[in-house]
Amino acid sequence: MTEQLSKKGEAWSARFSEPVSDLVKRYTASVFFDNRMAKADIEGSLAHAEMLAAQNIIPAADLDAIRRGMAQISQEIESGKFEWLLDLEDVHLNIEKRLTELVGDAGKRLHTGRSRNDQVATDIRLYVRSAIDDITGLLHQLRSALVDLAEQHADTILPGFTHMQVAQPITFGHHMLAYVEMFGRDAERMADCRKRVNRLPLGAAALAGTTFPIDRLRVAKTLGFDDVCHNSLDAVSDRDFAIEFTAAASLIMTHVSRMSEELVIWMSPRVGFIDIADRFCTGSSIMPQKKNPDVPELARGKTGRVYGHLMGLLTLMKGQPLAYNKDNQEDKEPLFDTVDTVVDTLRIFADMAGGITVKPEAMRAAALQGYATATDLADYLVKKGLPFRDAHEAVAHAVRTCVDANCDLADLSLEQLRAFSPLVGEDVFAVLTLEGSVAARDHVGGTAPNQVRAAIQLVREQLKM
Amino acid sequence: MTEQLSKKGEAWSARFSEPVSDLVKRYTASVFFDNRMAKADIEGSLAHAEMLAAQNIIPAADLDAIRRGMAQISQEIESGKFEWLLDLEDVHLNIEKRLTELVGDAGKRLHTGRSRNDQVATDIRLYVRSAIDDITGLLHQLRSALVDLAEQHADTILPGFTHMQVAQPITFGHHMLAYVEMFGRDAERMADCRKRVNRLPLGAAALAGTTFPIDRLRVAKTLGFDDVCHNSLDAVSDRDFAIEFTAAASLIMTHVSRMSEELVIWMSPRVGFIDIADRFCTGSSIMPQKKNPDVPELARGKTGRVYGHLMGLLTLMKGQPLAYNKDNQEDKEPLFDTVDTVVDTLRIFADMAGGITVKPEAMRAAALQGYATATDLADYLVKKGLPFRDAHEAVAHAVRTCVDANCDLADLSLEQLRAFSPLVGEDVFAVLTLEGSVAARDHVGGTAPNQVRAAIQLVREQLKM
Amino acid sequence: MTEQLSKKGEAWSARFSEPVSDLVKRYTASVFFDNRMAKADIEGSLAHAEMLAAQNIIPAADLDAIRRGMAQISQEIESGKFEWLLDLEDVHLNIEKRLTELVGDAGKRLHTGRSRNDQVATDIRLYVRSAIDDITGLLHQLRSALVDLAEQHADTILPGFTHMQVAQPITFGHHMLAYVEMFGRDAERMADCRKRVNRLPLGAAALAGTTFPIDRLRVAKTLGFDDVCHNSLDAVSDRDFAIEFTAAASLIMTHVSRMSEELVIWMSPRVGFIDIADRFCTGSSIMPQKKNPDVPELARGKTGRVYGHLMGLLTLMKGQPLAYNKDNQEDKEPLFDTVDTVVDTLRIFADMAGGITVKPEAMRAAALQGYATATDLADYLVKKGLPFRDAHEAVAHAVRTCVDANCDLADLSLEQLRAFSPLVGEDVFAVLTLEGSVAARDHVGGTAPNQVRAAIQLVREQLKM
Amino acid sequence: MTEQLSKKGEAWSARFSEPVSDLVKRYTASVFFDNRMAKADIEGSLAHAEMLAAQNIIPAADLDAIRRGMAQISQEIESGKFEWLLDLEDVHLNIEKRLTELVGDAGKRLHTGRSRNDQVATDIRLYVRSAIDDITGLLHQLRSALVDLAEQHADTILPGFTHMQVAQPITFGHHMLAYVEMFGRDAERMADCRKRVNRLPLGAAALAGTTFPIDRLRVAKTLGFDDVCHNSLDAVSDRDFAIEFTAAASLIMTHVSRMSEELVIWMSPRVGFIDIADRFCTGSSIMPQKKNPDVPELARGKTGRVYGHLMGLLTLMKGQPLAYNKDNQEDKEPLFDTVDTVVDTLRIFADMAGGITVKPEAMRAAALQGYATATDLADYLVKKGLPFRDAHEAVAHAVRTCVDANCDLADLSLEQLRAFSPLVGEDVFAVLTLEGSVAARDHVGGTAPNQVRAAIQLVREQLKM
Repeated sequence: MTEQLSKKGEAWSARFSEPVSDLVKRYTASVFFDNRMAKADIEGSLAHAEMLAAQNIIPAADLDAIRRGMAQISQEIESGKFEWLLDLEDVHLNIEKRLTELVGDAGKRLHTGRSRNDQVATDIRLYVRSAIDDITGLLHQLRSALVDLAEQHADTILPGFTHMQVAQPITFGHHMLAYVEMFGRDAERMADCRKRVNRLPLGAAALAGTTFPIDRLRVAKTLGFDDVCHNSLDAVSDRDFAIEFTAAASLIMTHVSRMSEELVIWMSPRVGFIDIADRFCTGSSIMPQKKNPDVPELARGKTGRVYGHLMGLLTLMKGQPLAYNKDNQEDKEPLFDTVDTVVDTLRIFADMAGGITVKPEAMRAAALQGYATATDLADYLVKKGLPFRDAHEAVAHAVRTCVDANCDLADLSLEQLRAFSPLVGEDVFAVLTLEGSVAARDHVGGTAPNQVRAAIQLVREQLKM
Repeated sequence: MTEQLSKKGEAWSARFSEPVSDLVKRYTASVFFDNRMAKADIEGSLAHAEMLAAQNIIPAADLDAIRRGMAQISQEIESGKFEWLLDLEDVHLNIEKRLTELVGDAGKRLHTGRSRNDQVATDIRLYVRSAIDDITGLLHQLRSALVDLAEQHADTILPGFTHMQVAQPITFGHHMLAYVEMFGRDAERMADCRKRVNRLPLGAAALAGTTFPIDRLRVAKTLGFDDVCHNSLDAVSDRDFAIEFTAAASLIMTHVSRMSEELVIWMSPRVGFIDIADRFCTGSSIMPQKKNPDVPELARGKTGRVYGHLMGLLTLMKGQPLAYNKDNQEDKEPLFDTVDTVVDTLRIFADMAGGITVKPEAMRAAALQGYATATDLADYLVKKGLPFRDAHEAVAHAVRTCVDANCDLADLSLEQLRAFSPLVGEDVFAVLTLEGSVAARDHVGGTAPNQVRAAIQLVREQLKM
Repeated sequence: MTEQLSKKGEAWSARFSEPVSDLVKRYTASVFFDNRMAKADIEGSLAHAEMLAAQNIIPAADLDAIRRGMAQISQEIESGKFEWLLDLEDVHLNIEKRLTELVGDAGKRLHTGRSRNDQVATDIRLYVRSAIDDITGLLHQLRSALVDLAEQHADTILPGFTHMQVAQPITFGHHMLAYVEMFGRDAERMADCRKRVNRLPLGAAALAGTTFPIDRLRVAKTLGFDDVCHNSLDAVSDRDFAIEFTAAASLIMTHVSRMSEELVIWMSPRVGFIDIADRFCTGSSIMPQKKNPDVPELARGKTGRVYGHLMGLLTLMKGQPLAYNKDNQEDKEPLFDTVDTVVDTLRIFADMAGGITVKPEAMRAAALQGYATATDLADYLVKKGLPFRDAHEAVAHAVRTCVDANCDLADLSLEQLRAFSPLVGEDVFAVLTLEGSVAARDHVGGTAPNQVRAAIQLVREQLKM
Repeated sequence: MTEQLSKKGEAWSARFSEPVSDLVKRYTASVFFDNRMAKADIEGSLAHAEMLAAQNIIPAADLDAIRRGMAQISQEIESGKFEWLLDLEDVHLNIEKRLTELVGDAGKRLHTGRSRNDQVATDIRLYVRSAIDDITGLLHQLRSALVDLAEQHADTILPGFTHMQVAQPITFGHHMLAYVEMFGRDAERMADCRKRVNRLPLGAAALAGTTFPIDRLRVAKTLGFDDVCHNSLDAVSDRDFAIEFTAAASLIMTHVSRMSEELVIWMSPRVGFIDIADRFCTGSSIMPQKKNPDVPELARGKTGRVYGHLMGLLTLMKGQPLAYNKDNQEDKEPLFDTVDTVVDTLRIFADMAGGITVKPEAMRAAALQGYATATDLADYLVKKGLPFRDAHEAVAHAVRTCVDANCDLADLSLEQLRAFSPLVGEDVFAVLTLEGSVAARDHVGGTAPNQVRAAIQLVREQLKM
């Protein structure tokens, strides 16, 4: 049994004259949250041991023993039988001590040529890499679900809003595709971040590298890393990759919050554009009639949580001198909670997209309120020869008249319309319809149904890749 | 058994056609973190029930039953036997359902005249109030410990730094008192925040008040609240008191981070001003000689966590329409973690203050390096009649000469000093000593040992109150 | 002319061998933003000089000269003729140098017994104190305007929302009073913060106090401070008062953002509860019909700016060792911009409150949609003897029936209602009206019009104080 | 003259019955900060006009007139003669109105087929793209300067710290390369962000596209964009690219803050590892001896500013419904200030790197304090056959003995050393030297001087690309 580790309950090492106090032990221990990285820790240790054996730093028999011991430990952890001890501080020492119990001196040799500093940095990177892959998959699912919804409603007319005022008619499919684009960029960011996460810190040891003849590229290859970190001090001390990940996660939540805001407003009875299936809603303890869009509300609320973690991590790294400082232990909980929040939220949103019922009549009715085709009238006048700014002003006069008369532009007679510009002809009424308006925005990125369908096609092909 | 609550695993209420999905259930449930408010929840329910009975809204027998049931529930929770169910969403419904199991219809009548919206707002306020009281006590302990340390070192000379450059000699006691002041203001902020926390939201019901003839002032008095919230919409929807608390907590952590930074630097071997007892330090898994000041480092790192929670809560409330939205469920975890972090950190710091060993020789040696008494020389010249700006310039010349000659101001001969100003006399050497310098700053707030002792006296009296 | 200051364009002082580079000069100078504190700087210098003379540290003639010089400088600044020089770094040196030009050696003696460290800390506190007073006045104005609006609409029925779903009927006056409460707490926070701002740092000098026989209490009295800072290191280095102020300002903006969100939604055509006067709105460069609620939107956007400043200041102070570091120069711009943002926003909101047109019919129509009186029906059944939880469930059944039949609760016949509970009698229809519902919530904080009027009365009295 | 724009001082358009108030005008106008985008605005307008002409939407003569007018406007702006008017709100309307003054109806036709919503989105992207290119160049310069410094000190021994305690000897060159790596990743992030910035929003018009037969790909090509934004709603409303940029900028500042912290500590007299040239330092108004490292301190302080802007922008976008809202006007100032801060800071750091004087003796002396070669001794024992954990414990005993005896490991006799492990032989003293320790860490990323030189070579090649 490892003497040093077995006495952890007493003093840290022979260099210390008294053990840490119980309060300190609890304050500084990480084992009750970092044991979530146990799988990564074992995976990293096995790759390290395999390299140590290949380089003849440890005998082959030790590698076998370590593999055997780790297999049993993995099983113990999965089955919930592994006993995590506060006295052993963290996931690393807990596993190492159990390994030494199981396989003796081979376990004590595992830590040759490495330190907890590069070990934990490796574990976190493995963890974040795996989280990025999960999130990428979920973004793909969510985008697929939104594209399906967009396709069903490529022609469904919805009032487009700016400033929450009716602006121009658009289609609901077009609106959904805006989110498909946003979540697409989120996936790009995750892929870019992955490049920087996927570099191996192991071999940096405490901070300066090690005196053993290690082969870092071999370990990188075993663990699927693209490259090694090229400076040992940087490898153990920086956490920019974790902050970059959390920033990308914050943008996912930003987009989620925007979509949530719209879903909540759309389901409010005065708007009534959509309904969300009962399985995503709950009621009130006092008001029996209530059906509340809990999921989008809560997701909107969870945005703050991820923003907060980003700010926490940035604060953590601000002004930290090289190389490793204990401060860095605080990188894990915000990361873990960010991953949980984003994963759960994307999963439930991908699911909820199929539970949205669109109410086309309510949307259409809303689009008819608010002079949505005023721009079309201005464009019509421009095409008849009026400079745009003058056309804008002429139509503003017409709208003012309608506001006073409480009617729509299409309700004005040709004669009335001509009062604002003599260029108005009988063909004007075609441009004042919602369908005409939508169909006319017929260029890449425009809301015309055929453009919406083309965009859907394009995204579907991306999603296949 | 309550029919509505017992069917929660099926559909939310009779108004719903399908139950929430398992994923949604887990996503929206709060019971596994809000059960920490169980004590407050029961306390609030008992006060509510007592008032309902006093107002004849429920029969006295019901109150008895509720009290009996709650006593048993409290016991079950304390002994760890209470079974918290995900299906029942939160702490409130879990307790209410158990109550109804235990006491039947009386339990079903408890929710008369209230809603979960005002109930949870009450619980959080009770929780935060109690946290404020704990933190206030710990700030008191920490300040006491620092005052003790200051008293021991009211005369111990330390170089005062600005820009991390030696500025002027001060005493270590004076330096400690700076933190005593900071933590004193933190206690003031907690007291001010408490006033706003300590107002009763109960009676706001869902958002508009209730149709039952409740007596809110009675409930306020029972629960020790100073006042009731004067608007029901505001009562259930705002969380500014929680944000104010977290902002005050962030300032505590700011002060902790500053003190931590100094302790870490002071314990660095090149500086060596202090040592921290082994029980607050740990070693390295690879470097056998290391003794690391883990506690202040980790505390400095935890600053980010609390800042992050503040940002999270601010984001949460930004742009939320009235009255209650599900977003608000996200107020709890950041609050709980803020309380835990601040409580643990203050406790360990109050303890650690007694484990700091001051090394006066190292401090003195450092004070002799860096021309710490240059300002004294300038002041000397001013007192001899030179305008301050000219005195400043004369001394700058003298320092430049010393830098080039690699000596201290006190090493210059009278003749050499007179080269910079003919006003210099033999009495100059008295002002160039560290003790003379420190003693001369003899006014309220100055570093003169007798001022330090007077300040200690003043704080001790405050602490007695 | 001050020799030292006049050579600033060359080297910092005789101690330096080369001047700062132009790039460094621009990077480190603060004069182009801190000159906003010129008035405070002069006020502080005059109080300091007055004390120096009273203590016989400078001759009375010097005080006269300084007063004369400062009077002229004030005039030059107000008339825009004062020439701010980058070479002189900051507001302090610019004014001091000009003073010395004007009055000679008396100007050089002004800096006796102080440092820029305590001088700038004093200036900022004077500046923040004045900002707090302005903001307090504006909060008062805004609350008055909202109370006026509340009074006009103490009876106007509005649907109360939770989760953006219709919850229970309330009155518009009651809704406005929720904001009156929020802004009232904001004013309390400003008052509490003011206590901590209003302590005098002057006399702390660079960090340790001064060797001159200064009278800090005299200066404090002259400048209207309640007390002096009791520790010189703390006085020059901490900025917690500025962070506390920014946190309180962030809460003001949180409340502004919530109100803005509601105004924007209420003005959206599908909701149509209010109109905002044209003078607070702008149009579109392309859509001639648009009238956008720019002011609340922009105010909501400005929330981020103030939150950001809070985060920036917290980051600034994190881990800063004592005493003063150059980092602290970064405290000013976020503070100034926070003050500007809050002052402008409150002023425009106080003004805009009078430009809100309420549309009672739209509000009433909305209140009739969404079973707003379902809780009243449940309460009715409780009063007839049904336990609350059973009543809740009975009404949920009734609502479900109405949803399916697309009708309101009040549309059901007595017989139909009795199908859900035999306790229903003819008197049920009275509780199903909006007016009946609102009037029944008749307790402190409830939405009953007479409670709203009582609350208005209470606030009016507070505002008189 | 444009009628609509010329009346802006009266009412917004014919649709409005009263002009905005002066207070509102000032509150909502952006011209005094967004005129910084004038160059981008003109560039975008010219590309738009060129396309309008190519598509026969405007006559060729109009294009000529617009080009002529814009040339003059550019000149007016550069020469400071252009008069920016508050009444015209923003940079766009100011330029458009002036254009119409200069060239008449052609100017009024420029806005055909676009809106300010897509126009401003285009301007910001052009601005951010250009900022990214500047920052990338400056990161390159800074890395070059640090590599030069690293090369000069590839062999200079420095104590490597973890927890601010001496850990193992490293070289100063190796330490500098850690920052070269960090700033290298920052450059990667800027390049990745650029891909998402460099997509053209123009053509999205207000939110839905336009009815004119525009050619967006042509405009993209003219302006050097890689692609067009594929959804018009997304194009005008999202600002994730700006947030991503600010997050990447925050990481640059994080790295700057870490380097600054080290420079400040290293220049503190007790440490004394470096000196920074006088031209980057300033003095004190009161303490004549002071020379303060202002530049790194201020840079460290400016970290908060950029973090704050990131928080501000995230808050801005949280929960914003589609498509454009006035909130978004608040995106510019934080962006501009972020760019200014990062550009100025990187420039001054690249310059300052050449002003750092390294003091090898002080570094060496520090490395000899703190048992820096204890790990080497442990590794030595491992190579002699002891399992690592046992070796660690043996050396911990040896260190404890040295601490008590106040001596270094190398000061122990062979006999004394053998007391801790019989495996120690005469060859042990070679591994206890600083040079031996450093040279032994001889693998990719290790601190051995030849590895440092190899790393320098690698970076130099990257920098050539």
